[in-house]
Amino acid sequence: MTEVVALAKELILRPSVTPDDAGCQMLIAKRLQRAGFACEHLRFGEVDNLWATHGSGAPVLVLLGHTDVVPPGPREAWNSDPFVPEIRDGMLYGRGAADMKGSVAAFVVALERFVAAHPRHSGTVALLLTSDEEGEAIDGVRRVADTFRTRGQKIDWCITGEPSSTAKLGDLLRVGRRGTLSATLTVKGIQGHVAYPEKARNPVHQAMPALTELVAHRWDDGYESFPPTSLQVSNVHAGTGANNVIPGELQVLFNLRYNPHWQAEQLERQCESVLRAHALEYTIHWHRGGEPFHTPEGPLRSAAREVLTRLAGAVPQESTSGGTSDARFIAPLGAQCVEIGPVNASIHKVDEHVAVADLEALPDLYQALIERLLP
Amino acid sequence: MTEVVALAKELILRPSVTPDDAGCQMLIAKRLQRAGFACEHLRFGEVDNLWATHGSGAPVLVLLGHTDVVPPGPREAWNSDPFVPEIRDGMLYGRGAADMKGSVAAFVVALERFVAAHPRHSGTVALLLTSDEEGEAIDGVRRVADTFRTRGQKIDWCITGEPSSTAKLGDLLRVGRRGTLSATLTVKGIQGHVAYPEKARNPVHQAMPALTELVAHRWDDGYESFPPTSLQVSNVHAGTGANNVIPGELQVLFNLRYNPHWQAEQLERQCESVLRAHALEYTIHWHRGGEPFHTPEGPLRSAAREVLTRLAGAVPQESTSGGTSDARFIAPLGAQCVEIGPVNASIHKVDEHVAVADLEALPDLYQALIERLLP
Repeated sequence: MTEVVALAKELILRPSVTPDDAGCQMLIAKRLQRAGFACEHLRFGEVDNLWATHGSGAPVLVLLGHTDVVPPGPREAWNSDPFVPEIRDGMLYGRGAADMKGSVAAFVVALERFVAAHPRHSGTVALLLTSDEEGEAIDGVRRVADTFRTRGQKIDWCITGEPSSTAKLGDLLRVGRRGTLSATLTVKGIQGHVAYPEKARNPVHQAMPALTELVAHRWDDGYESFPPTSLQVSNVHAGTGANNVIPGELQVLFNLRYNPHWQAEQLERQCESVLRAHALEYTIHWHRGGEPFHTPEGPLRSAAREVLTRLAGAVPQESTSGGTSDARFIAPLGAQCVEIGPVNASIHKVDEHVAVADLEALPDLYQALIERLLP
Repeated sequence: MTEVVALAKELILRPSVTPDDAGCQMLIAKRLQRAGFACEHLRFGEVDNLWATHGSGAPVLVLLGHTDVVPPGPREAWNSDPFVPEIRDGMLYGRGAADMKGSVAAFVVALERFVAAHPRHSGTVALLLTSDEEGEAIDGVRRVADTFRTRGQKIDWCITGEPSSTAKLGDLLRVGRRGTLSATLTVKGIQGHVAYPEKARNPVHQAMPALTELVAHRWDDGYESFPPTSLQVSNVHAGTGANNVIPGELQVLFNLRYNPHWQAEQLERQCESVLRAHALEYTIHWHRGGEPFHTPEGPLRSAAREVLTRLAGAVPQESTSGGTSDARFIAPLGAQCVEIGPVNASIHKVDEHVAVADLEALPDLYQALIERLLP
């Protein structure tokens, strides 16, 4: 068994359901300390964060990952225990195999090899791990970034190991993420009996034309390599079950995924102007889940493209699609960010797995990137 | 204390929360038997129904009422015990005082006096009571009407004692009720992550234009003395709370109150043609809660108008507004139906009450009507 597979299996054995780290970071810190890294444990609330650095000064290259995993669901739905790693037909199975204990193991092996081969490399190479990427994401990298801001810790480049590949290892290089903005909208009406509509004001009837307009609105046609900004209604609730009562209020949750053409505040303003134009009596609570980020052409992006092309055998697609990742907290520090990781087809599902061959290719890929950036 | 007030108090003392009759009908049956009525107890499931008749043959005049009441809610919200009748400032307080133990007591007193004064009246005079008007309304008058249909029991005229008056006793004569038609609509989409709207199909987005059209539709401008047909959305539900998931389905409950211009089937067809025109993937379950009824000008309506005008001192408004009543089950037997009862301002509320003076006027009013119809 190769070193990276052995470490990935050790991590999968630890049932680190978010936000529990279950000892993963301590295991990694011990290895990196032996390799000469300075390790700092930043615990916020119930969340463990590990900040391990080697070298000093600029440029600062950070490998970013998480040790927590999403809950596995019922054991019987899996073909093998989600927390007992098992290799079948060239695949390593277990919760976190792809998202993202495999990449974390590959980071560690790559860092050990890099500092062994280049003990006096330029700048700083670092590993940042959290146990709160899959959960609330409040006491994880968000809090670490606040700490960095206070300390004046600069970061030039950040490589996240999130599973970015779609069909084949290295086929996609993520160079940005959309922002996410959530709204909880309450439209107030006047409750009444359905037999006397003239004495009531139905908030569902009042809200529908406004919501129809919001949903039909074309915000943009995309931006650079970003897909168009999109608004999706995720929840609507009104009424208590009785079919003879006009409800007194309607609650709507909706979410915008937006590209860097926009700032959250502009989107909030536009949405509210539609609500006001329809004369709704409403309250709205906005939650800015993460600003968008975008890494334009530059040293990090071109290094990543070249390494992927060489090791994976084809020019990667450069994409900004997908959900959010912890890079949203690092990018605002002024860092360029990319995401490179294994195939994501099985993540958050039963029988999550990573191809052993892909896992074994990852340390070389990450090491080559580090060597390109910190010669 | 007058006879009608004494009987109303005896009825209020019995806590007949729907569908429990709590002995009201037995008390009434004993009195009417003493007065020469033939009494039949029709119990269906948990529901008591009383059918008391005097005389024989046509025409058949039925006084229709219910002994059940809506739950009183918390005792502390009331100024006096809802099941201990109390007179304060000329008002009789208690659950059911207005809806409709007061009218039931007045029916009984009017019937006793009528048969005493006219032992050989023409036709049949009858009292029909149920303990399931405020509840499911399945084993009450609906079932009794089925029994009548089987037996070939004809009914010419029906006077319901529902509290129809608005500001002053006798100011409104109800000569019809709208029909009620309910729909449970499920719109199917494809669940997905809000970050990948192109892989999902949001049922809320798809349904909104169709619902907006249904809600904005003007069905008619009213019919005879009926208000316009109205559609109200009473419930909308989609999503499980998470703001990053596009829901897989939307559930909508809506209700139509319609006038006799329509048959339920036509309304169902029109609604579904809108849903289909918007290419929705949906299932719909219709519940026909009651057909509309309408009593045109004729002996019952003119007798009721004259008696009300004489006893109440002003020509009543003739109306078809309001919810539904058990008359919806009697009208399809071919009966003309009207509703005449006390002021309805406090019904279904705390501190329900009826003016003692109004209660004392009701037996004369009902007796005068019976005398006009069965000379």
